[in-house]
Amino acid sequence: NQSLYRVLSAHRQSVDQRRTYRNYNEAFIGRHIGPRDADKKVMLETLGFKNIEELISATIPQNIRLTRDLKLTNPMCETDILKRLQSIADLNNIKWRTFMGMGYYNCVTPTPILRNIFENPGWTTPYTPYQAEIAQGRLESLLNYQTMICELTALDITNASLLDEGTAAAEAMQMCFRHHKEKRNKFLVSNNAHPQTMAIVKTRAHALDIQVDAFDGTKDVFDGRTKLGDLFDLSQYCGVLVNFPDTNGNVDNLTSIVEQSKAKECIVVVATDLLALTMIKPPGEYGPGCDIAIGTAQRFGIPLNYGGPHAAFLACRDYLTRLIPGRVVGLTKDAQGNQALRLALQTREQHIRRDKATSNICTAQALLANMSAMYAIYHGPKGLKDIAKLIHEKTLYLARKIAENEDNRVVTYMPFDTLKVVVKHQKYIRSKAEARHINLRYYPDGKHVGVSLDETVTDQDLKDLVWIFGAHEEYEKTGEIKFEDDLLENGIESTPLGRKSEFLTHPLFNTYHSEMKLVRYMKRLENKDISLVHSMIPLGSCTMKLNATTEMIPSSWPHFASLHPYQPPSQTKGYQLMINELENDLCQLTGYDNVSFQPNSGAQGEYAGLRVIKSYLEYQNEGHRDICLIPVSAHGTNPASAHMAGMRVEAILVQKDGKIDINYLKEKLSKFSDRIACLMVTYPSTFGVFEESIMEICDLIHSCGSAQVYLDGANMNAQVGLCRPGDYGSDVSHLNLHKTFCIPHGGGGPGMGPIAVKKHCIITSQYMIYRYLIQIMLLIIPLIVTFVHHNHFGTVSAAPWGSAAILPISWAYIKLMGGQGLRHASEVAILNANYMSVKLKDAYKVLYRGVNGTVAHEFILDVRDFKKTAGVEAMDIAKRLQDYGFHAPTVSFPVANTLMIEPTESEDKQELDRFCDAMIRIRSEIRDIETGLMDRKVNPLKCAPHTQRVICSSDWNRPYTREMAAFPASYIKPETKMWPTVGRIDDIYGDTHLFCTCPPVTDQLY
Amino acid sequence: NQSLYRVLSAHRQSVDQRRTYRNYNEAFIGRHIGPRDADKKVMLETLGFKNIEELISATIPQNIRLTRDLKLTNPMCETDILKRLQSIADLNNIKWRTFMGMGYYNCVTPTPILRNIFENPGWTTPYTPYQAEIAQGRLESLLNYQTMICELTALDITNASLLDEGTAAAEAMQMCFRHHKEKRNKFLVSNNAHPQTMAIVKTRAHALDIQVDAFDGTKDVFDGRTKLGDLFDLSQYCGVLVNFPDTNGNVDNLTSIVEQSKAKECIVVVATDLLALTMIKPPGEYGPGCDIAIGTAQRFGIPLNYGGPHAAFLACRDYLTRLIPGRVVGLTKDAQGNQALRLALQTREQHIRRDKATSNICTAQALLANMSAMYAIYHGPKGLKDIAKLIHEKTLYLARKIAENEDNRVVTYMPFDTLKVVVKHQKYIRSKAEARHINLRYYPDGKHVGVSLDETVTDQDLKDLVWIFGAHEEYEKTGEIKFEDDLLENGIESTPLGRKSEFLTHPLFNTYHSEMKLVRYMKRLENKDISLVHSMIPLGSCTMKLNATTEMIPSSWPHFASLHPYQPPSQTKGYQLMINELENDLCQLTGYDNVSFQPNSGAQGEYAGLRVIKSYLEYQNEGHRDICLIPVSAHGTNPASAHMAGMRVEAILVQKDGKIDINYLKEKLSKFSDRIACLMVTYPSTFGVFEESIMEICDLIHSCGSAQVYLDGANMNAQVGLCRPGDYGSDVSHLNLHKTFCIPHGGGGPGMGPIAVKKHCIITSQYMIYRYLIQIMLLIIPLIVTFVHHNHFGTVSAAPWGSAAILPISWAYIKLMGGQGLRHASEVAILNANYMSVKLKDAYKVLYRGVNGTVAHEFILDVRDFKKTAGVEAMDIAKRLQDYGFHAPTVSFPVANTLMIEPTESEDKQELDRFCDAMIRIRSEIRDIETGLMDRKVNPLKCAPHTQRVICSSDWNRPYTREMAAFPASYIKPETKMWPTVGRIDDIYGDTHLFCTCPPVTDQLY
Repeated sequence: NQSLYRVLSAHRQSVDQRRTYRNYNEAFIGRHIGPRDADKKVMLETLGFKNIEELISATIPQNIRLTRDLKLTNPMCETDILKRLQSIADLNNIKWRTFMGMGYYNCVTPTPILRNIFENPGWTTPYTPYQAEIAQGRLESLLNYQTMICELTALDITNASLLDEGTAAAEAMQMCFRHHKEKRNKFLVSNNAHPQTMAIVKTRAHALDIQVDAFDGTKDVFDGRTKLGDLFDLSQYCGVLVNFPDTNGNVDNLTSIVEQSKAKECIVVVATDLLALTMIKPPGEYGPGCDIAIGTAQRFGIPLNYGGPHAAFLACRDYLTRLIPGRVVGLTKDAQGNQALRLALQTREQHIRRDKATSNICTAQALLANMSAMYAIYHGPKGLKDIAKLIHEKTLYLARKIAENEDNRVVTYMPFDTLKVVVKHQKYIRSKAEARHINLRYYPDGKHVGVSLDETVTDQDLKDLVWIFGAHEEYEKTGEIKFEDDLLENGIESTPLGRKSEFLTHPLFNTYHSEMKLVRYMKRLENKDISLVHSMIPLGSCTMKLNATTEMIPSSWPHFASLHPYQPPSQTKGYQLMINELENDLCQLTGYDNVSFQPNSGAQGEYAGLRVIKSYLEYQNEGHRDICLIPVSAHGTNPASAHMAGMRVEAILVQKDGKIDINYLKEKLSKFSDRIACLMVTYPSTFGVFEESIMEICDLIHSCGSAQVYLDGANMNAQVGLCRPGDYGSDVSHLNLHKTFCIPHGGGGPGMGPIAVKKHCIITSQYMIYRYLIQIMLLIIPLIVTFVHHNHFGTVSAAPWGSAAILPISWAYIKLMGGQGLRHASEVAILNANYMSVKLKDAYKVLYRGVNGTVAHEFILDVRDFKKTAGVEAMDIAKRLQDYGFHAPTVSFPVANTLMIEPTESEDKQELDRFCDAMIRIRSEIRDIETGLMDRKVNPLKCAPHTQRVICSSDWNRPYTREMAAFPASYIKPETKMWPTVGRIDDIYGDTHLFCTCPPVTDQLY
Repeated sequence: NQSLYRVLSAHRQSVDQRRTYRNYNEAFIGRHIGPRDADKKVMLETLGFKNIEELISATIPQNIRLTRDLKLTNPMCETDILKRLQSIADLNNIKWRTFMGMGYYNCVTPTPILRNIFENPGWTTPYTPYQAEIAQGRLESLLNYQTMICELTALDITNASLLDEGTAAAEAMQMCFRHHKEKRNKFLVSNNAHPQTMAIVKTRAHALDIQVDAFDGTKDVFDGRTKLGDLFDLSQYCGVLVNFPDTNGNVDNLTSIVEQSKAKECIVVVATDLLALTMIKPPGEYGPGCDIAIGTAQRFGIPLNYGGPHAAFLACRDYLTRLIPGRVVGLTKDAQGNQALRLALQTREQHIRRDKATSNICTAQALLANMSAMYAIYHGPKGLKDIAKLIHEKTLYLARKIAENEDNRVVTYMPFDTLKVVVKHQKYIRSKAEARHINLRYYPDGKHVGVSLDETVTDQDLKDLVWIFGAHEEYEKTGEIKFEDDLLENGIESTPLGRKSEFLTHPLFNTYHSEMKLVRYMKRLENKDISLVHSMIPLGSCTMKLNATTEMIPSSWPHFASLHPYQPPSQTKGYQLMINELENDLCQLTGYDNVSFQPNSGAQGEYAGLRVIKSYLEYQNEGHRDICLIPVSAHGTNPASAHMAGMRVEAILVQKDGKIDINYLKEKLSKFSDRIACLMVTYPSTFGVFEESIMEICDLIHSCGSAQVYLDGANMNAQVGLCRPGDYGSDVSHLNLHKTFCIPHGGGGPGMGPIAVKKHCIITSQYMIYRYLIQIMLLIIPLIVTFVHHNHFGTVSAAPWGSAAILPISWAYIKLMGGQGLRHASEVAILNANYMSVKLKDAYKVLYRGVNGTVAHEFILDVRDFKKTAGVEAMDIAKRLQDYGFHAPTVSFPVANTLMIEPTESEDKQELDRFCDAMIRIRSEIRDIETGLMDRKVNPLKCAPHTQRVICSSDWNRPYTREMAAFPASYIKPETKMWPTVGRIDDIYGDTHLFCTCPPVTDQLY
């Protein structure tokens, strides 16, 4: 295909030539891409290619190449991008004050936390803390988060955050279901739950064939005058979900429901509010039947963010530990016997257990969980309670005032911060509220109005609210508000529902109350961890590329951060515009026709995408198709998601060369024929190769009735601008915006996993809610759940656009790079990987290569032989790399005992050389073991990583020197070395001695 | 005075009692102040006081106590402060585009630099790098800055920044003067200099009795057709100053002037522009007569900031090295012989040489210098030149277009970025410009208009400018701008004035061009340095207190950062309002009547304040008074400032107990009687004591004719809310806003040194330009120099309000704390110091105490005896403290071989205890030497600080263990230890082998 090649390389050249002093609009491309032009030349020479197009042509099958420019705007410079985005942001009207509640509350992010965590690349750019020895900082912070959740809920164990409150409820339901060995397939939900929670639970239940029943969560039921057990046969239900406080503001006594449920072994799940729990009796204290609590930490200092990202939580009793979804941080000890932290119980997780996992969740919301933990640390238990008291007092005051007007009746009999009011004319109240730029919750029945207070409510806000409810019109003139003492005296704490137990008594929550102290604590933790500000993080399949400052800045702007997800779209036009533009750009980049931004993680995207396929098949009257074909090389998340989507997983074998075994595939297709729902494939494959036959494979699937192709977008970073899944046969993909599109990993989240689909999936399955439709409906009734309509399979996350506040990052990246920049980024990602694979080829075996001997944007080093020759495993190399100042590549995925390396385009030649040099030195260290020069058990690899504690000790009796241990190359200098802060983690000890909250104070951690 | 005491303590109690959950507006006070209430109680018990008022009463003389509340607004919470400040900021109209030039240009701050340096406490909160071993990061960055300046100017040596371009010119004049042994007291200035530069030079010259003459900097003079030597007898002039490019935009050939001056040994000082120097022949290449270059690095990524802070530079030839003012970073080696950086040639500086110093400057602009160096590193030489070319091309384009309209004549014959144009009707041009919201420079002659372009100029800007000059009205319709090739081809580079030489060829400026790379480099440097994010910095007299995030945030807002200092006040109403409020608050806090914000450092403030006194005396017809009495305990800056202000310094001895010897003072007063201009006194004294006799001393001075009292405000942190200099007898003070009022030290600047004066100094000397007057005059002619009017002694810095952009920090601090908070901060500052002095009293001798045995907010430890008993000096203790993770207190000031400790109110009890524990352990280490347990030469103190290089080495032959060296206490943990990155600095080696730019690449630094 010589002519295509000529066209492409001619085009490329002209781009290079255009780079003069005049087009500094394109300067960002050179900021984002690591290697300079001169470096690229040298690297291509090393590879034996004349230019980059030659490399790409050799790597990507010609039949899927995109042979034209992307239809994107020209690259913009950073200044212009910020100006443009500011003008878009200004379309979001932040004059409105929103008291809509429903799980989202205004709050104050303490500025030291905002600046030193949320705006600090030291906290935003690390990866999930799988390499625990260089991640003790955020592990400690997540442990603090877990301690906070356990103490506030009074439950035993929790995970290190989930995505949002709605999905946390769905995860809880799945726990109940699994606990009952999937035998009780009914789940009961109180109608006092937030509507979006109810919707997500229903969606999730449907695919798992769980029947969701709702009950009327009246006072009578809670007080036991009406017995829940009389209304439902609880022995058939795996669990029951109640909101506490409920969506209408009431705090109910859970005793009756808990006792009845307990008697029938039905698990009570409580959706609760962390701030309320400082004043009310926590779920864990309602006896042993109340076993799971879920909710969100949003109001602990995390901005509303138009719905996300936030950190949700799920806490439970000990006996449910093995069923808990997501990551759990736990204590263990290191090789020297010192206390250390790491992710516990990984054997539950999807990357190990695949479709048998408790959940498909991988990315959580680490960054936000850390912010909320720091919020609790900064305020301390007393401070938190003071905030709660202030809100509660204002709520009681407001309730009294509202009731003074006989047109109103406050329905909420026992409020914490929320009131539901029957009003005479909802429309009249609304018009008054709008006159004051205030958003309230207008119940769809046209009769009720809800109002939720929070820590930002000022006296002026209260006065306006009183005025809106026409309670006390003369109030305005009387001046200051006076809170009578009897308000709080008769408040919730005076009732049996008041909290009696202490919480957050650990010194950690009682020490860092001055800003100086807090900032030092945050810095101390930050400096323990390797992030992108230190060195490359070459994690295969994770795309740890530059998260540019300019891309990050807008997420802190109040115009993006301070909006409630259910605010009417007339107030959020900026978001609509930005999201529309991003959708168009993503469609352009992928060849798909529409994008949904609801899924707020990659796993969520997989799940949503598979549900789309299922819906599509149902629409085609082929709803019986239920088999999802997944190559054995896939991420564990794929089978876990397929399982959650109600599909059966059939593994597809791969050949020795790593490619899908097409004959095997054909056999499966003919064996299962009309039961095939879809193929779920990653491209380029997780083996780091662009398979030549991808088009043929897609065609094969499509030849099988209505079967669909789901292409996992994790490896989009090798494709952008070069080929498009939508062009070569895929029907649905999710896109990990936190990989390819520059959202930072946040130390384990937030991520965003929007799904992109071809036209037939939009129109026929009606899955995709057209944005216009959304806008119109939002104008009428501002509730996401009301979108559920015919043939829509449901709602996958609580906010309409998932984690909307981080979308400007991806939007900005695309606009900054433009079509040519994005394409060049992909080219350099492939160049970098190939350069490394060649540099390393004499020292290590590269497991898979494409037909022309090249790799994609990542590649696998096979180190399995060393097990025999030197007793060395991939994990030893990974740990030894820490001594060289590097984060390890991906270990043992997709092939056990191998290393998968992905450099991304943002790393320059010098950094690649440095990493390769470290790997080559390690190879030579292995050779010393092989030749017997070094002991097989006590050697720098087996003893890695080496801590200061070990190196600086007077006692040193190793058969190698301190210098060999800690400074094995000239570029590892004492003055800049990044040390692991603990020695090799003992995973087994931790899992057998599970401890997942802050340990008693010892000299060790504090 | 028991009744006073009762009133005060009753009042205090009520404040404490009011602290309930309801008044969270006051929460910030608890964030700023370190110790919790319970801690304060324990600390007071340790001291033997019942409550804090008792301590204060025992410490501050009753006759100067303030017995009423400060008249300040109530404390506001952080959210409200940011809202209020945003509403003030919004009054600054940022719609206007300003092309006024005159040394201030719009530029783009690269966002990674903004976020990771300017907004990062790791860079903003360290102190001046006197403790070099824990400051190698910013020392390296400042060395980069120096390299950048030397290479762009082609001169040999430079300092690590000065305050602004105007004062840099004045410093250069002083260098010329000193070089000629103060014998040539004439200085020649071209009238092509910026007017504000001219004004400052004149002001400075006046006090030193230097005669400033101006010459007409015409093309004829520069081209040598008119000989400068014919017009002036250059052998009488110590130096001559020319602007290059000049204020009207011309780039002239300096050859003729340089040759003529050289012949008469008259030093040529060139005020130049760093960006222009990438295209034009630099000063250093005009032969050996062109020996000093000055200017500002502002346009290298530092926002306009309404005038400051920016970083000015001064570079010169080797032979002038010993005369260079300010700090110079130089290479040296450490105790292990490794390369290290430190401040060189400190023996020139005011803290050593006092009134013999080359200048009084101490605080420079380190933070801004670092930003500008990073800007150069990020762009590299090619990038910088590309930016210059873009600007130059646009300027040539604009010149051509303007000239197309025959109503205009472009006066500038050889522009780089600035054009001066004769127009038909200046007013008409102005009205058109204003219609487009554009500010130009309107020359006072009513005939000329100036326009300066910069890197932010867009095509739209150009179109608007073309339209304004009516050059090409149809232009608007033709669409895109086309730059013809012949523009640049005939540009300045094609003339003999074009730069031929290379610059910034060092790898440092050619490596960090991707954002990933730059961010890692900045982080690597940051992590080498101890700042307030790590541990307390108990520097006596420096007040290293919390710089709260909320206070810092507004300085990045475009509404404060993007304004030109000479923009009309109608566009800067927000600044005017904020500055007025700050002035009122500072008057309230000090008892003075008016404040001038012009001085942009403490030293500048001292100088300005003394000039006020001199002016006042002249107005009183006592201009002959020229003696400034200064206690020997004063900061070296005091005598240096007095010298610069044209005064003669007479030292006042102190008694053995540290107090001013009143009899000695009386003797001096009677001896010099009517020659006494003023007393310059620090209160509480630099010995850390509130002298009982301060009122008596003030009275004594005032009894001596018109003699005045100048009170150095460095120690205001012990007084705010407790006593006021204006009340007890002082006439003038400067206030170090970067000490008492929370502006961070920036690693050596920026600071702010506004002066506050009593009414008689305002009215009679007419020094103070009433703000209203300023506003009116600015409306007419927007030039600060035009303010010079009768009896005004001149201008001290280039911008009307000094470093205006950091004033919001102090404004916010005062509003956040309110009167009671500020007062309590002073109380706790005194409590903390007293607590430490008691904790340490058994281990060390506290040198001075007040009448009741208490100290002020700082105290001196006398370690002089150890010299004899153990061979240990204060410096050894200081270095040993680094091993304990602490920055040393102030060493050998005000008493040689002592340590002065100032904890500030922001440090909590735990941190004080930790520091005291370290000091006590060090005392015990000294005892081991005294008793012979430890060697006198090789011991942990003499070998301190210990680096990783030393500790991790296989070779260890010290008579103490590695653990004793590096982890001498349990709270120094390997996982969080802050290591010095080099060993003990060899100062002498560095000064005898002076090297002040980046060394050739070795494995060491890069």
